Amino acid sequence: MSFIQNTWYAAAWSREITRSLLSRKIANESIVFYRKEAGDIAALTDRCPHRFVPLHLGKLKGDIVECGYHGLCFDPSGACTLNPHGDGAIPRAAKVKSYKVVEKHDVAWVWLGDASKADESLIADFSVLTNPKFRTVSSYLHVQANYQLVSDNLLDLSHGQYLHPMFKNAEGPPKFEAEKEPQPDEVWAKFSRPNQLPNKYFQMLGFPKDQRGDHRNFMRWNAPSLLLLDVGMTGVNRPAEEGISIPTSHLLTPETETSTHYFWAMSRDFRQDEDDLSQELLRAGVALFDDEDKPVIEAQQRMINTQDLMSLKPVLLQTDGPAVRARRIVEAQLKAEQP
Amino acid sequence: MSFIQNTWYAAAWSREITRSLLSRKIANESIVFYRKEAGDIAALTDRCPHRFVPLHLGKLKGDIVECGYHGLCFDPSGACTLNPHGDGAIPRAAKVKSYKVVEKHDVAWVWLGDASKADESLIADFSVLTNPKFRTVSSYLHVQANYQLVSDNLLDLSHGQYLHPMFKNAEGPPKFEAEKEPQPDEVWAKFSRPNQLPNKYFQMLGFPKDQRGDHRNFMRWNAPSLLLLDVGMTGVNRPAEEGISIPTSHLLTPETETSTHYFWAMSRDFRQDEDDLSQELLRAGVALFDDEDKPVIEAQQRMINTQDLMSLKPVLLQTDGPAVRARRIVEAQLKAEQP
Amino acid sequence: MSFIQNTWYAAAWSREITRSLLSRKIANESIVFYRKEAGDIAALTDRCPHRFVPLHLGKLKGDIVECGYHGLCFDPSGACTLNPHGDGAIPRAAKVKSYKVVEKHDVAWVWLGDASKADESLIADFSVLTNPKFRTVSSYLHVQANYQLVSDNLLDLSHGQYLHPMFKNAEGPPKFEAEKEPQPDEVWAKFSRPNQLPNKYFQMLGFPKDQRGDHRNFMRWNAPSLLLLDVGMTGVNRPAEEGISIPTSHLLTPETETSTHYFWAMSRDFRQDEDDLSQELLRAGVALFDDEDKPVIEAQQRMINTQDLMSLKPVLLQTDGPAVRARRIVEAQLKAEQP
Repeated sequence: MSFIQNTWYAAAWSREITRSLLSRKIANESIVFYRKEAGDIAALTDRCPHRFVPLHLGKLKGDIVECGYHGLCFDPSGACTLNPHGDGAIPRAAKVKSYKVVEKHDVAWVWLGDASKADESLIADFSVLTNPKFRTVSSYLHVQANYQLVSDNLLDLSHGQYLHPMFKNAEGPPKFEAEKEPQPDEVWAKFSRPNQLPNKYFQMLGFPKDQRGDHRNFMRWNAPSLLLLDVGMTGVNRPAEEGISIPTSHLLTPETETSTHYFWAMSRDFRQDEDDLSQELLRAGVALFDDEDKPVIEAQQRMINTQDLMSLKPVLLQTDGPAVRARRIVEAQLKAEQP
Repeated sequence: MSFIQNTWYAAAWSREITRSLLSRKIANESIVFYRKEAGDIAALTDRCPHRFVPLHLGKLKGDIVECGYHGLCFDPSGACTLNPHGDGAIPRAAKVKSYKVVEKHDVAWVWLGDASKADESLIADFSVLTNPKFRTVSSYLHVQANYQLVSDNLLDLSHGQYLHPMFKNAEGPPKFEAEKEPQPDEVWAKFSRPNQLPNKYFQMLGFPKDQRGDHRNFMRWNAPSLLLLDVGMTGVNRPAEEGISIPTSHLLTPETETSTHYFWAMSRDFRQDEDDLSQELLRAGVALFDDEDKPVIEAQQRMINTQDLMSLKPVLLQTDGPAVRARRIVEAQLKAEQP
Repeated sequence: MSFIQNTWYAAAWSREITRSLLSRKIANESIVFYRKEAGDIAALTDRCPHRFVPLHLGKLKGDIVECGYHGLCFDPSGACTLNPHGDGAIPRAAKVKSYKVVEKHDVAWVWLGDASKADESLIADFSVLTNPKFRTVSSYLHVQANYQLVSDNLLDLSHGQYLHPMFKNAEGPPKFEAEKEPQPDEVWAKFSRPNQLPNKYFQMLGFPKDQRGDHRNFMRWNAPSLLLLDVGMTGVNRPAEEGISIPTSHLLTPETETSTHYFWAMSRDFRQDEDDLSQELLRAGVALFDDEDKPVIEAQQRMINTQDLMSLKPVLLQTDGPAVRARRIVEAQLKAEQP
């Protein structure tokens, strides 16, 4: 199994990349990230070409990384700028790959493939993360499972009824509505709960406990695995704008075939100045994603082991439609990249 | 290496299977066990056919298991009884394997192979475990070694002299008597110590320290790895019935090629009402099997690694006869199951 | 990858081998070492040929090792001297390999290959370890990396400037002088710092902080991976004998392809009677080798994974010359041993 190369992967929250060297493996490539003196981000292969020691064990000097083993220096373009030994000649092969990185929506995005195709406008819209009308809390989770299992989880939100006590509704699992006019590179998985009492999550957010309303969970997926959930609750048959919204971002980045970087954020358009609610949301996110989703997805990975999920012929339900479509889009993009 | 399919494996002590979901891997198959409302035992493949999440992470509702991920429900026959999503149609492939289980001698026995051959009368006789004339204590041990290495250990009890201080006799290793008329599917390994002083074990059981006696260790083996030790001590040249007996059961169940479920029990026909002696026996069992046998057998497994013991051409002694015969019976049964 | 067979490997410091059974894996062979009653050392395959239990789990009785499982006994020649079971006949195959071991320079050296070639005079000269003019401290380190990565580390001491704060000099990395007349089976890697202020290491040893001097680091390598560093500091342009010397031994023994036994010692020809300095040197050695070198070498191993360093085409600098020569000598010796 390989990974799509010509795509933007979420490498880190912007705040994670500082004047320290940050090592992160993205789609099997070890990369060291750091912020240059001017403030933009550099990303280099995290392996010195001399003796293969990770560069993040070295030192950042200005915009230069000095290898911690024998002192070879590399600039943000990946060129070796100093060999402190002997006559100081720099061997032609003494260079590392430099990755294109852009910051957008408070996320550092990295491009592994052909740099000439690295068009910033291809990044899916997560502007809600920096939209001043919203207050956003965000976190990071490491999952020992393939990123597509996490993506599948998010594309079938009917699991909330069984796995997440906070999302359980007395009237059973949500209604699933198949897409009428699917877009070629985008998938929508729409789950709704019209005319119901609020679950514990919406109660926490302040929706009156005894008031019925319409609750929507509309998940948008963009390749390879970037998901934005339009979630909110409003009065029965009232427009969404009248109610509360808490759009939730799930940025999934493959680390290896069996591990995933999971960046999540909750943005809300109400009670924005309440720090206590922000803390409560962070706690809820950890309970939901770390404590409830992660163990099940990792158990699934152990059952599947090194095989591909689809090759094991899983039984498919109607609610699996979006996940199956998303997997087909990834497969097509992978195929298109084959020489 | 594969495992015999058409045989009864000890899956659990009866008391271990309750109204909670118990997951146990038997001969590489993940199985979830639970007790039905009527009291008998159900056993299903511990993997939902929808997304391959282990069923034991779900909920038991009546006699039904509800998958913890998306709520598919399975009955004790393995049939899916509910798809709570969409139109509720149940895909034809939505089913899991149901295993035949019987309870006998306080043990839950599971049959992996052809259910039509699952004849309860094939279970070897361990009626001592529930015989009211005996008081029984029992426990469970997990060993990181192939079940045949544990079986070999029990079929050559001369090791007691070297590995178990409690079983050591001043007069050296026991006498081994080869079987005169071996049965086709049963192996006996008879070790005896006529006219000796009691070792520490028999002293603990109350045999007078300075009185000589006849001490017998007669191990019975039935395929694939069920062992019952007729062990006791009586006066010199006196019938066994006059002395004390403490028949010891060793039920070995392969978990994987390199790990074993080890169920053991000690039954005694004397001092049955002394709870302190029961506790002392449990402690002795842990000292003998957990602390002395297990480390040696696991070290043996690490030395052998993934190879088969016999392929490494071990030096064979006379006392290895029973273990070699038992391995040949297993091999023949495995061969007979090949298509 | 295989290991040279006809060579002396450092198996242990002499003091480590006592009347207890010491198990150590040398170049993938599990060996049990012990001191005979007469004081010399025996070394046997650490695996009973009967049931493959490690012999070091047994008992030492006189010069005999009794297997802890069934009591087979082996003498220092590897012959089985007792089968305590049945008729006591000793099967012809009941024997283990006995290894030739010699003690020299306070080190126990073991020979894995053809015993007829085990010539003690082939052991490289580490007589400094027992030379009464020197006071020696020594220790042991286990490294999760191939022994040649450790050897490479020691053959390019320019790394001290970057990895070891104690060895850093204000005037930059040391000067490297290529060998003029290389010997066929020996490699020298000479690094020097003429006319410099002492680094923290030499300050600790007592060289005046504000006095310039000549500092030499001349590393001698002998196959397969025995290194002696002639390190010292003297006045500018003064003979070495006038200054202080602290020859440092590094004996590297492959345990497996990816782990190494690392024996090190520091011998000094000054302040020999100061126990505090001995303790300080031991602490410095742990800081340098355990805390600074080991993590980098192990990170290197993880990057290289199961591949061979040279097959990954590392960029080579002038200072890599000695390491490359040493690897070529090992390769030639390995090739010469192929049938």
